[in-house]
Amino acid sequence: MLIDRVGEFGLIKRFKSLIKNDRTVIKGSGDDCAVLKFTENKYQLFTCDMLVEGVDFLPQDDPYLVGRKALAVSLSDIAACAGIGRHCLVSLALPKKTKLKFVDRLFKGMLDLAGEYKINLVGGDLSRARQVMIDISLLGEVDKKFLVLRNGARPKDIIFVTGRLGGSILGKHLSFNPRLNEARFLVKNFKLNSMIDISDGLIQDLGHILTESKVGAVVYEDLIPLAKEASGLRQALYMGEDFELLFTLPQKEARRLVAKRLPDFKPIGEITPVKCGIRLISSKGKESFVRPQGFRHF
Amino acid sequence: MLIDRVGEFGLIKRFKSLIKNDRTVIKGSGDDCAVLKFTENKYQLFTCDMLVEGVDFLPQDDPYLVGRKALAVSLSDIAACAGIGRHCLVSLALPKKTKLKFVDRLFKGMLDLAGEYKINLVGGDLSRARQVMIDISLLGEVDKKFLVLRNGARPKDIIFVTGRLGGSILGKHLSFNPRLNEARFLVKNFKLNSMIDISDGLIQDLGHILTESKVGAVVYEDLIPLAKEASGLRQALYMGEDFELLFTLPQKEARRLVAKRLPDFKPIGEITPVKCGIRLISSKGKESFVRPQGFRHF
Repeated sequence: MLIDRVGEFGLIKRFKSLIKNDRTVIKGSGDDCAVLKFTENKYQLFTCDMLVEGVDFLPQDDPYLVGRKALAVSLSDIAACAGIGRHCLVSLALPKKTKLKFVDRLFKGMLDLAGEYKINLVGGDLSRARQVMIDISLLGEVDKKFLVLRNGARPKDIIFVTGRLGGSILGKHLSFNPRLNEARFLVKNFKLNSMIDISDGLIQDLGHILTESKVGAVVYEDLIPLAKEASGLRQALYMGEDFELLFTLPQKEARRLVAKRLPDFKPIGEITPVKCGIRLISSKGKESFVRPQGFRHF
Repeated sequence: MLIDRVGEFGLIKRFKSLIKNDRTVIKGSGDDCAVLKFTENKYQLFTCDMLVEGVDFLPQDDPYLVGRKALAVSLSDIAACAGIGRHCLVSLALPKKTKLKFVDRLFKGMLDLAGEYKINLVGGDLSRARQVMIDISLLGEVDKKFLVLRNGARPKDIIFVTGRLGGSILGKHLSFNPRLNEARFLVKNFKLNSMIDISDGLIQDLGHILTESKVGAVVYEDLIPLAKEASGLRQALYMGEDFELLFTLPQKEARRLVAKRLPDFKPIGEITPVKCGIRLISSKGKESFVRPQGFRHF
């Protein structure tokens, strides 16, 4: 039997059930970051993301942006937990015939973004492979009172997204700004119940919140902010790599957020008690039920 | 210009010079682990290691041992800093046609070793690639008073190794026990000046200690403990993947260690003030100077 029979998320579930962790692990596999015991007032965040040539970027992409993206995707995970980034390690596998200029540009893209968000690059590993592969592991921290996970969504919460969705493949996936500042702004000013970053597509990532929180959702298609690059709603619902934040907060908090009229935060729906997926409402009021789906590696 | 013109260590040097870290980084790139500010009495250790199919293991190797090795090499880095392992993340890239059984075995090998050393597996990332690739990033901790780095070797220090060297490629590289307990025993009972794990070959890894400590060394060929798998001295000197510890301590401490007659710790030479590489003394008293060399990815 091959792994595509169980699929990416099937594999993760299979592994998760075998893992036994001690009490210093506040949250292990199954959120954007692992959450670890740290200081009296803070948790440590720990996450990793791997980019593979031909999957997450193309040979003809600007290596500066590839290096930048390698760090940005991990920073987006830290943002989804409302933390700040601190230290990273870089594992890099390169074909023997790689140009020095490629590596220089890749590294500069990574270091420039690290500088922007004050991330220390503290080491790594170099290896040889047939495809370029970059895996960054990132440590961060978050005030205990600010931590937001996927599992806190409650019925009647309003669902929000940052920015605009869809069409990321045309360029944004290589140049997006991880939403660290937006996440910090949110947790400092509002009480959020759940949050995730949209890496596998709105519907699939909303599905993760629903599964972890044991709730359902209704989403209004008209409310979904479309990127100008998006060819249509389908892209905004199912295409990966938007790296925007998806979060829920109680109605009272939501009203306060809406009242601020900030263009970066848009309500798109509501959490419901029903535990069976997502109800989509079209502009004409037509209802359809969708199952979480989006990008999968296998 | 291609990367093999500057080589693996040339690349690392090139990157290192560009990195600027803040004061919470006690030691960045250039040791077995990054050393980070943590608690009043402890440092946090942070390391990653990537295994690539065809480079670090072969398609026909037992996936149980491959998974085990993926974690063991990082634990060996923690051992080299005299720490204990705590939490790890696993990034795994797999070809689409990978058998589920392969992944199950790989994961079991990893989890069994994690259980043995009480390591929490707190998350990871799954991706698709043409070759199997496993990158583990590992957090550990060490009492400040026990931390040992590569840069503390002093003239007249005696150089020791654990275990036996050479021929690791015949099997030990897949089944070695990381020397965590031995390292802890050493730092609890002796004052060590420097330590590294032998991953790229005795001569090359001794070279790292000499460069970081700005000293030289004399090594007696007769004293090097050969593994029974080793075909000869050359393998013990230059072949990678022994994953034994190489450490130095002052003469007085060395005498105390030798007096204990522990078969796992053998003196092989002495640190000298001369800053130009390693002087090898053959069984017949013949001297030769060697430059650090050993395994390189390019």
